[in-house]
Amino acid sequence: MKNMSVKKKRNGPIMFPKATLERLKMYHALLQEEKSEYISSEEIARKLSIKPEQVRKDISYLDYSGKPKVGYHISSLVDALDELFGTKLRDNIIIIGAGHLGKALANYKGFVNFGIRVVAIFDNDPEKLGTYVGELVVLPLKDLDRVIRRFNVKIGTICVPGESAQKTVDLLIKKGIKAIWNFAPVILEVPENILVENMDIARSVLTLKHLLDRTPTGKIR
Amino acid sequence: MKNMSVKKKRNGPIMFPKATLERLKMYHALLQEEKSEYISSEEIARKLSIKPEQVRKDISYLDYSGKPKVGYHISSLVDALDELFGTKLRDNIIIIGAGHLGKALANYKGFVNFGIRVVAIFDNDPEKLGTYVGELVVLPLKDLDRVIRRFNVKIGTICVPGESAQKTVDLLIKKGIKAIWNFAPVILEVPENILVENMDIARSVLTLKHLLDRTPTGKIR
Repeated sequence: MKNMSVKKKRNGPIMFPKATLERLKMYHALLQEEKSEYISSEEIARKLSIKPEQVRKDISYLDYSGKPKVGYHISSLVDALDELFGTKLRDNIIIIGAGHLGKALANYKGFVNFGIRVVAIFDNDPEKLGTYVGELVVLPLKDLDRVIRRFNVKIGTICVPGESAQKTVDLLIKKGIKAIWNFAPVILEVPENILVENMDIARSVLTLKHLLDRTPTGKIR
Repeated sequence: MKNMSVKKKRNGPIMFPKATLERLKMYHALLQEEKSEYISSEEIARKLSIKPEQVRKDISYLDYSGKPKVGYHISSLVDALDELFGTKLRDNIIIIGAGHLGKALANYKGFVNFGIRVVAIFDNDPEKLGTYVGELVVLPLKDLDRVIRRFNVKIGTICVPGESAQKTVDLLIKKGIKAIWNFAPVILEVPENILVENMDIARSVLTLKHLLDRTPTGKIR
């Protein structure tokens, strides 16, 4: 879990708190859908239920300067966000675990917009090996080496059950993977130079459960 | 997108920033796996790559008091987190969209630990209606009313494509849904009294792409 990140800038690195990166991703999602040419910080803030000052502060980190009177030029701002996230650089990723979630990710068509290509999906279940997931054949873990080198893979996606996640991650790191995209609902231990992004999908519903205000009987008000 | 939440306390509400809630969910994930009886804030911090002061501050919000010398009593701390997130209260949820992701969620066995039961999955594709997803039959949207009332459903899960997400959400709200668990990669507009938790799964990989430090040629250092 990395809470800070570094952006290269001519005058040295800028540190991004994780929360800032999360908001910048939301701006990216919002602005890609916008049809108009300009947008104000107030409008972004209203649509995302955050404060306009926060929006202006976040965007001030980017390699972009808005015009105070007319607002942000949307396509330029999207360009700046694309650069920040490297969406124009292609990363080949692999998926470990050909269960429901692994298959769902392997079949996701939108990755192309983020510069992501899924080049292989792996599993150790003999019944799954050789079956097709979209256009990919499920491969055994012994093929990891070959695939990682052939496609210069840096990002490994963990879609195995929680109990086998750590040993899968240890193996990936040994094989040269630099960044772990973790969908298993467990906390992983990795060396300091390895990046981890946790997507504990199911646990995310707990925010809604917490926020649903209830009476002591468990009934919602 | 709610950035603040309210916890009921005898002496009035406590506001949780979204980042705090996210860390509390990580503690929940970590502590559920721990085998020992006590854990220190330093150890939690080390395993999650955050600061011990942050851990102590976050946990001070909970209805729990640790013993400074021996650390936190793990099972009591899990209990406090369970109470915060309402994992012992059962919420019946519905899933809209029986594509790969919707099916993956409907089949997820771990929800029971979070007090979540998926009671129905919906789609408007005639080819999917009547097919089985685990033990659930895919239902048409015209059955929404009946299911929401029958199972007192408050949380609706959006697994439809981005372009139909907003109109699906509008429909759910009209039918009485109070909280939206959104897996569509778009920003939704909802009335103020409706909760939204966004899980833009694919976009989460952008954090890793951003953090993978590259030379100007796109090669990783």
